[in-house]
Amino acid sequence: MAFPIPRRLLLVSNSRLHGEGYLAHCEEQMRSFFGGKVNRVLFIPYALHDQDAYAKTAREKFESLGYELDSIHESSDPVEAVRKSEAIFVGGGNTFRLLKILYDLNLIPEIRKRVLHAGIPYMGSSAGTNVATISISTTNDMPIVFPPSLEALGFVPFNINPHYLDPDVNSTHMGETREERILQYHEEPDTPPVLGLREGSMLLVEGNKATLLGRNKARLFLRGQTPTEHEPGADFSFLLTSS
Amino acid sequence: MAFPIPRRLLLVSNSRLHGEGYLAHCEEQMRSFFGGKVNRVLFIPYALHDQDAYAKTAREKFESLGYELDSIHESSDPVEAVRKSEAIFVGGGNTFRLLKILYDLNLIPEIRKRVLHAGIPYMGSSAGTNVATISISTTNDMPIVFPPSLEALGFVPFNINPHYLDPDVNSTHMGETREERILQYHEEPDTPPVLGLREGSMLLVEGNKATLLGRNKARLFLRGQTPTEHEPGADFSFLLTSS
Ligand SMILES: [Ca+2]
Ligand SMILES: [Ca+2]
Repeated sequence: MAFPIPRRLLLVSNSRLHGEGYLAHCEEQMRSFFGGKVNRVLFIPYALHDQDAYAKTAREKFESLGYELDSIHESSDPVEAVRKSEAIFVGGGNTFRLLKILYDLNLIPEIRKRVLHAGIPYMGSSAGTNVATISISTTNDMPIVFPPSLEALGFVPFNINPHYLDPDVNSTHMGETREERILQYHEEPDTPPVLGLREGSMLLVEGNKATLLGRNKARLFLRGQTPTEHEPGADFSFLLTSS
Repeated sequence: MAFPIPRRLLLVSNSRLHGEGYLAHCEEQMRSFFGGKVNRVLFIPYALHDQDAYAKTAREKFESLGYELDSIHESSDPVEAVRKSEAIFVGGGNTFRLLKILYDLNLIPEIRKRVLHAGIPYMGSSAGTNVATISISTTNDMPIVFPPSLEALGFVPFNINPHYLDPDVNSTHMGETREERILQYHEEPDTPPVLGLREGSMLLVEGNKATLLGRNKARLFLRGQTPTEHEPGADFSFLLTSS
C-alpha cells in the first residue's frame, strides 16, 4: 500500500457484558479512542426498532464520558448529519436491518468518505462492527429484511464474527456450532479471513495497524487453515493487507 | 379457499437427534408420508458443500426404508430431474447456499409445480424446511452467499424456525436468544407467523390440514401476541389460511 489510509476504528464484539452496564467493559478504550478533540459523536441506532430508547441509552453513556451525542434518526437530513460528523458510533441489534437502512438512506458512501478520507473515528458494536467490515456474511442475526447486498462499509478487507461463542461441550443441540458456520463460509470460493471476537474483546485499527484489545482471546479463521487463538494485545495488522 | 391445494409436506426440524442416526427420529413418519406408491425419491443436497458424501448418507437411509434415491447433483439436467420426480427430499445445511442454488438453476418454479400442481410429496429437513416456507427470514444460518431474494418455495404462508432453542437460563452470553431474534422479525411490518420447531418435531401438511408430529412441543409466534406452546398432535391448519 503506497500510503496509509487514515482510518481509525474501534470494533467491539458486544455492547454489554453479563452483569455489567452498557459499554462498561470498553469504557477505557473509548476514552482513549475518541480522545480529547472529539466533542460530538453521531449515533446510528438503526439496528434496533426503538430508536428513541436506544439513543437515550447511548446518550447517557457518552455524556458520562464527556461527549455530546446526536442520534442520526433525530436529524431531518441523515446524509448531512454524516457529512458534518466528527465521530460515529454504530450500535448493535439486527445487522440486516441496519445495513438495509444504511443503503436505503444512501449513507454507505457518505460514511465511507468520512472515515476513509476525513479520518474521523468510527466505533461499532456487534452489528455496528459487522457493517464496518467487508460484508455481513458472518453476522449471527436472522435475515428479517433483505438489503440490496451483503457488502458493507468495507473499512477492513476481512469479516468479523462478533459475540464469538465456543462450542458447548455439554450441549445436545444439533444446530451448527459457530465454528461450523464459519467453516461453511470458508467452503465458498475466495472468502476472506474471519476474526471471531469473543464478548469482551475488540479490535482497534489505526491506519495500517490492528490490535486486539479487551479481556478475551480471539479466534482467527483463515480459509483452508486450522483456526488459531490470539491473546489480547495481538497484532492483526497482517489482516489489513490481505486483498 | 375455494378448492384444496393437493400439497403434501413433511417439514422436519432437524436431520439427526443427539446420539441417534440420520433421520432416525422421523423414520415412522417418513414411512407413512411416502407410503407404498413412491418408488424413487429425488434428493436435493445443495445446502451442504460435499454433495457426494451427503447423497451417500441420504441414499443409505432411504434405501433402508425401501425407496430408491436419486441425487439431483448427479443429474445432467436438474430441471428435468424435478419434472420427472415422484417425491422430493431437501436436506439441511446452509439455507442461503441452498436457496441461491435453487434460484441459480431455475428450480423454484419447477419444484413449485411438482408439489402444488402434481401433488408429489415434499420432505424437508432444517434448511430444506426453511425453503419450503414463505421465506428464509427465520433461518439460523449465516448469509455465506447472497441469493437474489429471501422468498422461498412458499408452500405455506408462514415461517418456520427449525432447531428452535429455548433460552439457556444459566448462560452469560449476551447475543440475542432465539426468541428475541424472532420477536425482532415481528417488529417489521406485515410479517407472518413463525412456528418454532424444536429438534425432534415436524409439521405434516396434507392439503389444508397441518399437524404437529414428533417428540417435542412447538412454540408459535404471532406478530404482536405472546408466544404460545403446542403439544405434539396440535392442529395448525389455521396457519395455512392466514394470508
Ligand atoms: Ca444482533
Ligand atoms: Ca443450518
